[in-house]
Amino acid sequence: MYSFKNDYSEGAHPKILQALLETNLIQEEGYGYDRHTEEAIHYIKQKINRDDIDIHLLQGGTQTNLLAISAFLRPHEAVIAPSTGHIFVNEAGAIENTGHKIITVPACEGKLKAQQIESVLSKHKDEHTVKPKLVYISNPTELGTVYNKSELLELRKVCNENRLFLFVDGARLASAMASKANDISLYEFSCLVDSFYIGGTKNGALLGEALVICNENLKEDFRYHIKQKGALLAKSRILGIQFAELFRDDLYMDLARHANEMATLLKKGLTELDYQFLVDSPSNQLFPIFPEEEIEQLKKDFLFYNWEKVDDKHSAIRLITSWATKKEEVLRFLEVVSKINKKRSVSHRL
Amino acid sequence: MYSFKNDYSEGAHPKILQALLETNLIQEEGYGYDRHTEEAIHYIKQKINRDDIDIHLLQGGTQTNLLAISAFLRPHEAVIAPSTGHIFVNEAGAIENTGHKIITVPACEGKLKAQQIESVLSKHKDEHTVKPKLVYISNPTELGTVYNKSELLELRKVCNENRLFLFVDGARLASAMASKANDISLYEFSCLVDSFYIGGTKNGALLGEALVICNENLKEDFRYHIKQKGALLAKSRILGIQFAELFRDDLYMDLARHANEMATLLKKGLTELDYQFLVDSPSNQLFPIFPEEEIEQLKKDFLFYNWEKVDDKHSAIRLITSWATKKEEVLRFLEVVSKINKKRSVSHRL
Amino acid sequence: MYSFKNDYSEGAHPKILQALLETNLIQEEGYGYDRHTEEAIHYIKQKINRDDIDIHLLQGGTQTNLLAISAFLRPHEAVIAPSTGHIFVNEAGAIENTGHKIITVPACEGKLKAQQIESVLSKHKDEHTVKPKLVYISNPTELGTVYNKSELLELRKVCNENRLFLFVDGARLASAMASKANDISLYEFSCLVDSFYIGGTKNGALLGEALVICNENLKEDFRYHIKQKGALLAKSRILGIQFAELFRDDLYMDLARHANEMATLLKKGLTELDYQFLVDSPSNQLFPIFPEEEIEQLKKDFLFYNWEKVDDKHSAIRLITSWATKKEEVLRFLEVVSKINKKRSVSHRL
Amino acid sequence: MYSFKNDYSEGAHPKILQALLETNLIQEEGYGYDRHTEEAIHYIKQKINRDDIDIHLLQGGTQTNLLAISAFLRPHEAVIAPSTGHIFVNEAGAIENTGHKIITVPACEGKLKAQQIESVLSKHKDEHTVKPKLVYISNPTELGTVYNKSELLELRKVCNENRLFLFVDGARLASAMASKANDISLYEFSCLVDSFYIGGTKNGALLGEALVICNENLKEDFRYHIKQKGALLAKSRILGIQFAELFRDDLYMDLARHANEMATLLKKGLTELDYQFLVDSPSNQLFPIFPEEEIEQLKKDFLFYNWEKVDDKHSAIRLITSWATKKEEVLRFLEVVSKINKKRSVSHRL
Repeated sequence: MYSFKNDYSEGAHPKILQALLETNLIQEEGYGYDRHTEEAIHYIKQKINRDDIDIHLLQGGTQTNLLAISAFLRPHEAVIAPSTGHIFVNEAGAIENTGHKIITVPACEGKLKAQQIESVLSKHKDEHTVKPKLVYISNPTELGTVYNKSELLELRKVCNENRLFLFVDGARLASAMASKANDISLYEFSCLVDSFYIGGTKNGALLGEALVICNENLKEDFRYHIKQKGALLAKSRILGIQFAELFRDDLYMDLARHANEMATLLKKGLTELDYQFLVDSPSNQLFPIFPEEEIEQLKKDFLFYNWEKVDDKHSAIRLITSWATKKEEVLRFLEVVSKINKKRSVSHRL
Repeated sequence: MYSFKNDYSEGAHPKILQALLETNLIQEEGYGYDRHTEEAIHYIKQKINRDDIDIHLLQGGTQTNLLAISAFLRPHEAVIAPSTGHIFVNEAGAIENTGHKIITVPACEGKLKAQQIESVLSKHKDEHTVKPKLVYISNPTELGTVYNKSELLELRKVCNENRLFLFVDGARLASAMASKANDISLYEFSCLVDSFYIGGTKNGALLGEALVICNENLKEDFRYHIKQKGALLAKSRILGIQFAELFRDDLYMDLARHANEMATLLKKGLTELDYQFLVDSPSNQLFPIFPEEEIEQLKKDFLFYNWEKVDDKHSAIRLITSWATKKEEVLRFLEVVSKINKKRSVSHRL
Repeated sequence: MYSFKNDYSEGAHPKILQALLETNLIQEEGYGYDRHTEEAIHYIKQKINRDDIDIHLLQGGTQTNLLAISAFLRPHEAVIAPSTGHIFVNEAGAIENTGHKIITVPACEGKLKAQQIESVLSKHKDEHTVKPKLVYISNPTELGTVYNKSELLELRKVCNENRLFLFVDGARLASAMASKANDISLYEFSCLVDSFYIGGTKNGALLGEALVICNENLKEDFRYHIKQKGALLAKSRILGIQFAELFRDDLYMDLARHANEMATLLKKGLTELDYQFLVDSPSNQLFPIFPEEEIEQLKKDFLFYNWEKVDDKHSAIRLITSWATKKEEVLRFLEVVSKINKKRSVSHRL
Repeated sequence: MYSFKNDYSEGAHPKILQALLETNLIQEEGYGYDRHTEEAIHYIKQKINRDDIDIHLLQGGTQTNLLAISAFLRPHEAVIAPSTGHIFVNEAGAIENTGHKIITVPACEGKLKAQQIESVLSKHKDEHTVKPKLVYISNPTELGTVYNKSELLELRKVCNENRLFLFVDGARLASAMASKANDISLYEFSCLVDSFYIGGTKNGALLGEALVICNENLKEDFRYHIKQKGALLAKSRILGIQFAELFRDDLYMDLARHANEMATLLKKGLTELDYQFLVDSPSNQLFPIFPEEEIEQLKKDFLFYNWEKVDDKHSAIRLITSWATKKEEVLRFLEVVSKINKKRSVSHRL
């Protein structure tokens, strides 16, 4: 069965494996001091077009989130996040486990609005509550939506006015950046946030996220935190080699563009068949709404997650495309849906 | 320059890369539910010859130590460790960062003695101190020595008498098990400890440690801890594939045997040249003592760590061999030492 | 200006000061081993009518909450609480700072309903989320409402079915127990919960809360936690003396009855003047709704907190009575309200 | 039996109780905003002769230590302390429980030497170890010795050179300041350290320690930490009243002078009887060495702690005097010792 469950079902892009093979027996320093990591950081800085940033290669999203947030905050400081934020919903209390509260506000299609931050601040005024200090958003969001420049500028403004850090979970950043909804360059993006990360796991790497720290005040001693949380790999080359391959040329964005194209194809096909979507997402995650019985039928041929019930008879499912998604499988999915759909129409008519 | 600094300078054993290539585009479940992880666990259990154990594949040594220890202990409980223990010396306070004190006793050639545990217990009797609950040792130790069965039995006895857990850091477990000093099977080993891990990073994997939980009471909900500490990889296949290769046949022990043989060769050569050792280590770490000026000369050709000063004019260095160590480089090292040594003899005679 | 802001504006009940004076120069053991603490525990057990419980005298509510919860839970386990819960709203992230997430559900007049627990459990099924393990409620709630026996039985049932602990914040437990809405004895109460505390600070003590641990499995090593969190007083006599006085005879309940009577008097008076309440609270906290301009006028004579806006022109205020509340001040308050009220009626008529 | 076990066996100095009585029914704000706390802080600042310091009234020593240290440090930063330091030996891992490692060096009569700090720093150079950031000492030390100005200046110098904080545990600060060994004013003291606390519990208060923060950078948001760790008392008046009494006039130093005088009397008497001391302590803690059998005999009349075995037949005991120590009991103690001593001399002669 073909899976649209996620964007980490396959291994790595072949170029990465090739690079692993070619460099395998060359002796390298460890703990981030290997030549590949150096090279990877060099290329990423080139792509961002900035040299005054720190970059650390880490292993996974939850690890990166907890590391960054716990390093950036003092014990009494808290995170503001949308209610759908991955750190709040899907990370087993990793942030709280480092001692910090997450204050949530109702997400609007996965997004956090600037005025929601102000509303939180108005309720956190003294030491009987935590002190909100860091704003967490994901781009794209957990619902596949993408922040545009104007939204980011507004968030930045509120953060500046209130001395808050803005941190972006970029587990799928490539898909956001490659999205038609995106109107901002990586350079501009890096100027609007204090820190963000560039997801590798979900865009062609075996594992790896590149944390970027833009705010000078947040850079000091970060390697200590990496080590202390158990995230400093001895064979750091495994991360360096992958990001070097992804960022040497345009591979990273090429892979995301493919993922987005496959999503667009799916979306177009489903729209033509008159399916609605839970949210209009311009990245590699789609949330089409199906009658329950059609979902059951689709599950005979494809793997995907049920996302949420929409009404008694309908649910949204989540379809994710990736760098590895095959066009023929997307077309086959649409074909199967089309057949099911026709059957329904016929049975309805009868 | 050839490096004897550590056993993680190269990439992975070629068989592992081959397996990565062959399975790369097959879709798999994530988060430890892929077929490779399942297979790896199956093979490891076969090698240990037990089915009543839980096995979790993790990324690195510090991560595994902090995960296991923080999951096994309640907040007021502490670790007893030898003063040379990796968790005390080289992990950036990772254990303390999870809230637990490490109580150290002077290590004897890297080892902890059973009576030292009793001595610690006699000083920790009420709630003004922490409550010692877990004994941490490394096998081989950080000085390359290997615990024999009788030593392990004594540690187990004291642990049983005092309701303590015995946890073994096995970052280099392969080298201990393959050592001539070892007189215990993996099965017996697993029966004497509550939990231990089987290091992959330092024995041919790109990354990965297999944590084994033997004590039934320590198994519950362990996956929650993995997720919470940011150690649950989405593409868990990268760990599964590697351990499956290492344990399908005898690769894991073969690699360790090679590392140990190379160490034995080095040791024999240096002994013949009349060099002393800081400690008589029967595994892949050697600590020969050299005059300072010889160390400087050796550093023109080889990379290695200075370990500690022995007296005004001598220091011990650390040489580590691995699965990837080339015999010709070992021989070349001995040759260079021999030349330096002769020059010294001559100059001494003059 | 007379204050109805809270129930901790005055010092201690005179009997407590008298006991401090009388015992002052007698040498006692420290750290909870003084004769007064022993005596206090004895009397509390008598009042609860159980001997198979552990009692620890602590200093304040937040301290007691964080101590109990962090001692009872493993790192990945979380708390379920109503959204108005003191630990969630007013304790500066104390619980999260010990590493545990609080999962909130919308409070219904300050209360948590049994089915809300089930709803939370249905969304926390695997290690991608925390594991709910402890249910936190306050009695009386932060809105002055009191749980009745049937509600507690339902909560217990759900907890039993799902292996959850039930913990009750009893900062104002006296007021709940003395309330007409209460239909349960302290003994029954102690059988329905795993742990709760008996607040002293808000019922006549200078400081002090008596934590009661009913569940056998939660008792072990609790004194270690007290020490580790900095809550083990050297001069524990200060806590022992107070609780001995409060529980030797009926002082503790007498004081609460007075507080409740004063609240009832206030409530009756305001009701007769046609004021509405945010919630119908049968304990020592009242939330009457006033026009904004009347609140401003009342503030010329009395201290109290604005609680929340009800509509554009009205807000609820919080009035709290205590063991020390003077009847003449309650009557004066009603008199002032009555005058303001009349003026309004007149001006409205004109 | 009369106790020389500690300096917290009695209640409070009578003036404190008197003040509690006189102010008891006056309504006050809570959480440190009462008039007494304000007054106390005013008086303490007067005594220190500085206004640019922050003062927070807390409950106990362990609480104050853990609060200050965890608020001052980032997660990867560690404490350097002498091996006899209270935080290392007697606080149940409270500091480690907040996530910070304590690096100890062998204490020299309870003291830490400046060069020991440098030695620690030389071994903590990168992220594989923690980063030493705060130096913890006690004054007087746990062995009753007192730092002189020159020692403090040296510590300060090393701290300055290495950007370390200097924090002083002053649980018995009064006794140090009142000691003949002290050659520094409170003002000078406050200029040499970043933070310290003024112990109340062990010098006449029922409970209470006054934390003084001198370093501007450590002041921000400290009240959040107090609340988060459960140390913000609702009825803060209990702390304010006590410190106001202790510091309004010279009560605080008068009490310490009495304690020290009683210790001097004891010391003189024992010296005349030819007893040796484990350490020459000039404060209210003495460590005389007795033959084991004499200790047994003394225990028939007095309470005190055995401190440590000196040889097969001798042990040091710990005698502590306080503000409440009665001169007649000191004389009686000496008399009993004298009798025992004579008996021994006689029996030895026979």
